[in-house]
This record gives sequence, C-alpha cells and structure tokens, in this order.
Amino acid sequence: MSKTTLSIVKTGGKILENPDLLQDLLQGFSQIEGKKILVHGGGKTATQVAEKLGVKTEMINGRRITSTEMLEVAVMVYGGLMNKSLVAKLQSVGMNALGLTGADLNVIQAHKRPVKEIDYGWAGDVDGIDADMLTTLLDQEIVPVMAPLTHDQQGNLLNTNADTIASTVAQGLASQFAVSLIFCFEKAGVLRDAADDDSVIRQINQHDFAAYSEDGTISDGMLPKLHNAFTALEAGVEQVCICHPSGLSTLQSDAFPGTRISLQTSNA
Amino acid sequence: MSKTTLSIVKTGGKILENPDLLQDLLQGFSQIEGKKILVHGGGKTATQVAEKLGVKTEMINGRRITSTEMLEVAVMVYGGLMNKSLVAKLQSVGMNALGLTGADLNVIQAHKRPVKEIDYGWAGDVDGIDADMLTTLLDQEIVPVMAPLTHDQQGNLLNTNADTIASTVAQGLASQFAVSLIFCFEKAGVLRDAADDDSVIRQINQHDFAAYSEDGTISDGMLPKLHNAFTALEAGVEQVCICHPSGLSTLQSDAFPGTRISLQTSNA
Repeated sequence: MSKTTLSIVKTGGKILENPDLLQDLLQGFSQIEGKKILVHGGGKTATQVAEKLGVKTEMINGRRITSTEMLEVAVMVYGGLMNKSLVAKLQSVGMNALGLTGADLNVIQAHKRPVKEIDYGWAGDVDGIDADMLTTLLDQEIVPVMAPLTHDQQGNLLNTNADTIASTVAQGLASQFAVSLIFCFEKAGVLRDAADDDSVIRQINQHDFAAYSEDGTISDGMLPKLHNAFTALEAGVEQVCICHPSGLSTLQSDAFPGTRISLQTSNA
Repeated sequence: MSKTTLSIVKTGGKILENPDLLQDLLQGFSQIEGKKILVHGGGKTATQVAEKLGVKTEMINGRRITSTEMLEVAVMVYGGLMNKSLVAKLQSVGMNALGLTGADLNVIQAHKRPVKEIDYGWAGDVDGIDADMLTTLLDQEIVPVMAPLTHDQQGNLLNTNADTIASTVAQGLASQFAVSLIFCFEKAGVLRDAADDDSVIRQINQHDFAAYSEDGTISDGMLPKLHNAFTALEAGVEQVCICHPSGLSTLQSDAFPGTRISLQTSNA
C-alpha cells in the first residue's frame, strides 16, 4: 500500500517579511496536494522589535545568545505575530491551519542546550516529536503551522532552529507518510553561480554532492543545509527540495524549477 | 445520562502578571476535575509593550481603539507571550495544553466590528464557535488555552474581549457538557463591601440580583459581568462562578469561598 503524501515546507523570515514573496508562498503552499505542514523561521522582525524594546542582541563568537528578554521577544514575534498571521492567512484561503510551538500538545520534545564553552541561554535542542499526535491532526485535514519554539517540559519556552524542527518532523513522520521536505528561500534553488538565478542545479544526489563540495560549486551556508538534507533522506524522507516560494505550485510536477535532492537520482 | 463536566475558567491580565496569583491559578486550575478550558485576557503587558514600541493607545469616548500597530502588539502579547507561556506552564504540570486564537482551527467565527459612530479598528465581535472541533479536542484530553483574538476569515486577526469569548464558548458547549463558567479575578468574589474581602456574597440567583442592583450593593463594573452571567445561564450554562484563583481548587466542593451564580438557588 502506498503511503499518503506529506509535504513539509520550511520558510524563513525573509519570505514572511516581504509581501510579494509571502503571497507566492501562500499561493504555492495552498496548491500542494496531499497533507502538509508549514514550519517558519524568525527573521529580522524579532531583531527590530528587540531593538525598539531596548533588548540587546548578545553574540558570543558570532553565535546569537537567547537571554530571558530576547526569549520574550522571540515568543512574541515567532509564536505570536508571525505564527498567528500565517494561520489567519491560511484560513482565509481554505486551509484549516493550527499554530503550534513545541509546547502546544507537547508535539516536540526538547531540552535547554547544556552550557559548555558557551551559554546559549534559552536555546532548545530537539529530542523528538509526537508523531502520533501530528498524524492525528493531519488525519483531520488540519494544517499545522510550526513556530521555531520548543519547551523544556519544566515550564520554560526555548528558542529553536526552524531548519532543525522541519527536519526532525520530516524524519519523525517518514515511517507513516511519503515525506517531501521543502526549504523555501529567496533564491530559485541551489545555484551553480550565486549571482545567476538561472543556474539552478535541478537534481543533486550523494555522488553529485561529493563532487560539488570538492570543486567548490557548493560552499558556505549551503553546505550544512545539504548535509541536513542527506541526513533526512537517510532517515527515510523521500525527497528534499530547495526552491523559491513560486516553485511550490509545481512541486509535484516535472516543471518544478528548484533543486531536488535525493540519495540516488531516479531516471527522469 | 448525565453530561460530562466542563469548567471554563476566564482569567484576566492582573492574575497573569502577578507571579503569586499566577501560581494560585495554575495550581487551582490543575486541581479542577473533568474537562477544562482556560481563556485569558490581556492586561497591562500589552500597554507597556506598546508604549516601549512607541505605539499610541487611541481612545475615543473612553473606549480603546485597535489600530493596525496596536493589533500587532495584541497578537504578540496575547497570542504569543501570554498564551505560549501559559501553555508551557500547564504542560509542566501535566496538562496537555493547546494554545488557540479564534483563527486556529477556525474555532471562533467573528467579524470586524462595523463602523457606526465610532471606528473601533481591528476589534472583533463574536458570531459563534466550532463546538464539534472543541469537543473533539476535549475528548482527546486536550486543554485549550484561548487568547482574546479572533479572525475575520479574510486573513485579518481581530482584538476580541476575553469575557465574551469565555461566555460564547460556554454557551456553545452547553448542550454537550455540564458547563461551569468561572471568572477568576483578584478579589474573593462578588463583595457586599468592595473594601472587605470577607464580605463575599456566596450565592446569587436572579431574584437576589434584582434586589442587589436596586439597593446598589452590586454596581459599576460588576453589573455587566452579572448580566453576562445570567445570559449564559439562560443559554444552558449550569453555573457561573466569580472567585479568586485560590478558590479554584475547591470549585467542586461546598468549601468554595467565591460567588456562585445560578438562575435559581438550589437547596444547599
């Protein structure tokens, strides 16, 4: 028996903060067939709100630290403004959206990042998800909209990486669903030439990735994204896609203009 | 066949902003037997955040107007900070809390208040609730935590009175459950003498209410609360209680120190 299709779309703050890109995202997301989950990141809004509130952004060795005050801003902006605005917009186009942090229904188990060389403050590392609860929601045609926040089960919320949440949810549901994990960002896909949006690499398998990393075609920020993609694929996720929000509408067709990542390239 | 008990507790911002009262609320709420829903109001935090962000509180004829900027603050503070903090705290004491605005799962139907003499801005008036969806959640032992926000089904969130949400939810679920609607605030109950916390009126029926209104024992802000209480009772809600958070733990016993409101006083 073939598994039901589940598309997990992760979008960053840059998309949500640009009305045109947000419109592309909402339209494309609504056109995806089958079950779906939207995971959103943070973005500049939190930094802007923090600045206006006089909350300083603490950095140690280039890494952001979540102070108590910064956590409150993250909860307001990610859990409130971004999450609920998305929920209202998705409801208006006919999707039965439900905003969730990891604390809601305890759908994500996490813990406060242990203090080693650096104290990251209220940062959460994900342990796992409640796959049964998410499946129950999906079976009721509910569209979960997940904010980058978890909790420690001791009453504290935790600032948590949205890519990690999307990837963990994808892996946790891979035994029940045929999962596609889609990273939506402002570029058309993984590019051969960062300056040329027409240079999308349409398919990448493990062999390609090794070659592209070695010759420097794929470098910097894209490397960890692709490493995470292969981790998800090895854990049973069927495909990982990287695309612009306008690519979502053709996700399930050959016309898809973004990058498809798989362990082995099928004969297309 | 007797109906399952459902307690709907509405709490205001003053309780949530005071750590001792919040502790009383969480402890008392966790001790209530049967199914339960928590509805929370706003409070001073939103005003404080608005001030820090430079968002002016607009008032016309003593009524607050929800500008676009003030709505964003309300969504951040009510839908984010307050709602998610409550969810994480309830999860930590073993309740499977789920934070909801009216937009989530479209559980509350509402519309933007029409502009007549006053334009209230992004204020919502409640039309009804999705009783089936809430019942489905309650049947799964989920504890809904409802923020004072609704949506217009056209993608806009609306600032909405928490007392009205609590009362509408209570009425909408009265045919399925034996509903108690509890308004929790910083006083012990409805007082004969506002300055004396020991002067709680333990029971009020319609006849008592008429007499207390006439002789001025109940006046000002308490009058609309009691009018709303009787409206809920006439719509099938079994009892309405007004109490301090510390009263919640004895809600279902004769030791309850707050005020019980009913259409007719039973022989106790």
